[in-house]
Amino acid sequence: MDSSKKNKQLESIRHSAEHILTQAMQRLYPDKFIMAMGPAIDTGFYFDFETINDFKVSENDFPEIEKEMTKIVKESLPITKEEISLDEAKKLFKNNPYKLEWLESIKNRKEKITIYKTGDEFIDLCSGPHLDNTKNIPAFKLLSVAGAYWHGDENNKMLTRIYGTAFENSKELRKYLNNLEEAKKRNHKKIGKELDLFCFSDLVGPGLPMFTPKGTIIIEELKKHIENVCRAYGFEKVMTPHLSKIKLYEISGHAKKFGQELFHVTSSRNHDLVLKPVQCPHQTQIYASQLRSYRDLPIRYMESEKQYRAEKGGEVGGLNRVYAITVEDGHSFCRVDQVKEEVINMVKIIKEFYTALGLWGSHWVSLSLRDYDHPEKYIGESKDWDTCEQMLEEIAKEMNLDAKKCEGEAALYGPKLDFMFKDALGNEIQIPTVQLDFATPKKFDLKYTDKDGSEKAPVMVHRAVLGSYERFLALIIEHFAGAFPIWLSPIQVKIVPISDKHLDYAQKIEKELKDQNVRVEIDNKSETMQNKIRNATTQKIPYILILGDKEVASSDQQVSVRQRDGQNIGTMPIKDFIKKVSQQISKKSLSLIK
Amino acid sequence: MDSSKKNKQLESIRHSAEHILTQAMQRLYPDKFIMAMGPAIDTGFYFDFETINDFKVSENDFPEIEKEMTKIVKESLPITKEEISLDEAKKLFKNNPYKLEWLESIKNRKEKITIYKTGDEFIDLCSGPHLDNTKNIPAFKLLSVAGAYWHGDENNKMLTRIYGTAFENSKELRKYLNNLEEAKKRNHKKIGKELDLFCFSDLVGPGLPMFTPKGTIIIEELKKHIENVCRAYGFEKVMTPHLSKIKLYEISGHAKKFGQELFHVTSSRNHDLVLKPVQCPHQTQIYASQLRSYRDLPIRYMESEKQYRAEKGGEVGGLNRVYAITVEDGHSFCRVDQVKEEVINMVKIIKEFYTALGLWGSHWVSLSLRDYDHPEKYIGESKDWDTCEQMLEEIAKEMNLDAKKCEGEAALYGPKLDFMFKDALGNEIQIPTVQLDFATPKKFDLKYTDKDGSEKAPVMVHRAVLGSYERFLALIIEHFAGAFPIWLSPIQVKIVPISDKHLDYAQKIEKELKDQNVRVEIDNKSETMQNKIRNATTQKIPYILILGDKEVASSDQQVSVRQRDGQNIGTMPIKDFIKKVSQQISKKSLSLIK
Repeated sequence: MDSSKKNKQLESIRHSAEHILTQAMQRLYPDKFIMAMGPAIDTGFYFDFETINDFKVSENDFPEIEKEMTKIVKESLPITKEEISLDEAKKLFKNNPYKLEWLESIKNRKEKITIYKTGDEFIDLCSGPHLDNTKNIPAFKLLSVAGAYWHGDENNKMLTRIYGTAFENSKELRKYLNNLEEAKKRNHKKIGKELDLFCFSDLVGPGLPMFTPKGTIIIEELKKHIENVCRAYGFEKVMTPHLSKIKLYEISGHAKKFGQELFHVTSSRNHDLVLKPVQCPHQTQIYASQLRSYRDLPIRYMESEKQYRAEKGGEVGGLNRVYAITVEDGHSFCRVDQVKEEVINMVKIIKEFYTALGLWGSHWVSLSLRDYDHPEKYIGESKDWDTCEQMLEEIAKEMNLDAKKCEGEAALYGPKLDFMFKDALGNEIQIPTVQLDFATPKKFDLKYTDKDGSEKAPVMVHRAVLGSYERFLALIIEHFAGAFPIWLSPIQVKIVPISDKHLDYAQKIEKELKDQNVRVEIDNKSETMQNKIRNATTQKIPYILILGDKEVASSDQQVSVRQRDGQNIGTMPIKDFIKKVSQQISKKSLSLIK
Repeated sequence: MDSSKKNKQLESIRHSAEHILTQAMQRLYPDKFIMAMGPAIDTGFYFDFETINDFKVSENDFPEIEKEMTKIVKESLPITKEEISLDEAKKLFKNNPYKLEWLESIKNRKEKITIYKTGDEFIDLCSGPHLDNTKNIPAFKLLSVAGAYWHGDENNKMLTRIYGTAFENSKELRKYLNNLEEAKKRNHKKIGKELDLFCFSDLVGPGLPMFTPKGTIIIEELKKHIENVCRAYGFEKVMTPHLSKIKLYEISGHAKKFGQELFHVTSSRNHDLVLKPVQCPHQTQIYASQLRSYRDLPIRYMESEKQYRAEKGGEVGGLNRVYAITVEDGHSFCRVDQVKEEVINMVKIIKEFYTALGLWGSHWVSLSLRDYDHPEKYIGESKDWDTCEQMLEEIAKEMNLDAKKCEGEAALYGPKLDFMFKDALGNEIQIPTVQLDFATPKKFDLKYTDKDGSEKAPVMVHRAVLGSYERFLALIIEHFAGAFPIWLSPIQVKIVPISDKHLDYAQKIEKELKDQNVRVEIDNKSETMQNKIRNATTQKIPYILILGDKEVASSDQQVSVRQRDGQNIGTMPIKDFIKKVSQQISKKSLSLIK
């Protein structure tokens, strides 16, 4: 079966499973709820309904509901489609305000109105697709209960939502459920709390994460690394404020693009500013602050500053969707004859960075082009777009990126190369990108004096490597399930003195490690050695040094080494241990000693 | 003469000089202006007036005005004081709306109304003090013309302001004028532009500096240094967003304290937030995110993030008064028995940091206590204040800080030690501070579990070392007149190939330096060697390496070294040069080779 046919089949299974869920609930809880809507989604399906009086459904009711659903499957009821008139439909659903609202909204669209029946018992207003018989639903599972506003709008009524999923066979379903279990274990919010990497406060507000010392270490290490890589390719760091007059974004086009997502900043002293939703326009202003000659180009800026977007209040959560986004952003201002090398270097930077994290290779590249049917969605001149798209295509070929052309995926101002990676659970995520932009420099009237004395506009090449530190941290927390490579580990070595009499020795060993810039902590709590080792392992600290009588008595400062994966490495002089660990740190090694 | 008597004398001289300025202008430009006001100020005096019709005064008119002023001085006119009634005053100034407004404003205050006369010719409403004769004005000078709103309020009329100064003798005046000249040369706005350290943009707006690559290098070097020093004393870096609900500051007391200076952040999606005016409250929330035990304390956070204050639009300028302030801030949360050591360590940090910059020693310390007559200005309990003040006094004594008690100079939440330095021109500036705070932790209900299982509030010790990077950068630009110590110099070495045929060698030398992390640039412009050397000197680049035939021919990679102060160091192998320079950088040396 080809993939679109397969997707269609899966959609039918899931949509039908949702109908069966509703039917089962009607049998079990008649007159206790009003059905609102229920689509198939990427991961299964959901069903939204309004409960009547004090009726409540919880996950405790799932076994009962699933039992009834299985019964309906076994009853082999035919699922049939019928076309009806608007009047018939209105009559049929006269007691259901949600269906009536929907009928009202489509009455002028001259769409055909279809219903689906399951046996003679269940009818829903629905455009399908569905299976033709309940017996063909091979494997399903209810997953969770949540609240959801009607139409996702918090001004509407809060409904109850049941999430479920269905697959073509039980093997697929089991695989999905295992994945879900793994995702829960790896969830960055859960691990972030366990490892004390970041926190939120009700007084500060949602969407505004605060990074603890440990989380800050990871971010600073990432920052140091990405800046070092980029510096080798000629990027220079700049620093711009988070505020600007809105004029800056009216010129760049971002005011229109971000619209409701812009935060407005005012004061009782008549200030009228906005928080920056992107970094690029500020950087154009540093370029514009001096006269530039063809000899000065390329000029490459990089910056790791926060930008702010007014996401919907209900949608922020964890680190993936926040108001405060720390973005690692870089731009090269160059001549047309330099664009190619700039793009190639940026792709090299991306490769170098992701290789160090063991993520390179599991990716594919999108050559993201315009939507040729809708040129109005973009800024800039058509001939510049042609040049840019052709240039990127050439580079992609020369660098063997095996890029897939994706029309309609370009940025506001130009085409781009997007790098798509897979997260720990195989979900696709797009982070690094290289974007060509002939338009922005012209909008800001940026110039350089060419060899012949004429004034020309530079080209701007945008690049993101790790994107936002918040999302990237969420990604790597989940990727490594908290067991970061040693160079990123907030604490690299935990020292466990077996009893208080070994504390002096522990402090000596601590000093040796600190002197070599190894991040180390002594566990001096009054607990058993076993508990201390367990705690350090739970905290995913790469190495645990256990120090007792034998180590204290050794003439060459022995330490007994364990890894966070439980492996016992044996004893060795601290000097040898430091040598091994320092090498792993400086090489950004992904593995430990064993 | 004691200093208060001396100050009074100087004030009389300056105030009288201002009257003479007005009188001279009345003689020269009768009916062409209306006098508004004119006080003596710290640096001299100014005179505000409204011009009539198209009358304009410029600095070109100063010689004429000064000549007339000298004439009045030579006329030896008596300056006399008279008390008059409100009605008489109103009659006397019936044509002057500024004086009438002032009379109106004081009419209920039952103040005595006094006028000063100079000879029989000039009268002003004035409460003095003045000299008794114009002949006693020994030395004066007009300085500049500016615009100024009446009462400093931009809703009022724009007046013309003439600044001038006067001193007790011409030697003092000359010294002041020389200082002024030096200040102009060292002005951080001027040097910042010349050395391309930061810029502003009309599109972004005033008060929002953007740091170029070179300025960012200085800030990052300072940041790295201060963080290293603090890390050695147990400070851990955290990262918090710039936004918060206002609730956070209502609890901390900053909402009330900052009032109009708060920036409010809203969106069309109903967000209602503020930009942080200080860092401390966010850090309390990281502390609050975990249970803390007495064993965990002290917990020391440091952060270098921007905070935002809505200064008056007319008052922002350069780096000293901005909306976006990058503040290096640190806090220790500790037990009462740990406070002393915390404060001592913070003072050590301050000493270490300022010593490295050659600024330690030219300072005095203020023990800033409450205003005992106005306890309502502070938060917290009186007995805690007693404890804190006593503790700081003890520490100041033990550390031989020779601290001067300054009542009324305490922070909102507690007493502090303030360190007052002198800038390049001898003006006093206060940056580092250590502040005790028993109040804030209680307000945020911060806790730790003590040895005996009871819950206690930690003490918060606030410390600033370099304060804001913006103001500190302005300070050191002016202090070093742009010739930064080598570790802070954006470019440490400039390579000057004598002609294009020496470029290959120049690139080899560049690589050697880069490999040792020396910040280096080649001047490959098509200019004469002399011009290249002059440019590098103007850019205050510590070392200039001149490479010609002799150097290229050398067997041990010789370079010919010059310093930015014009001294010729002679030739040496690049290895020797790198060794010297690397040492100077790592030692943060304040001097160059010679």
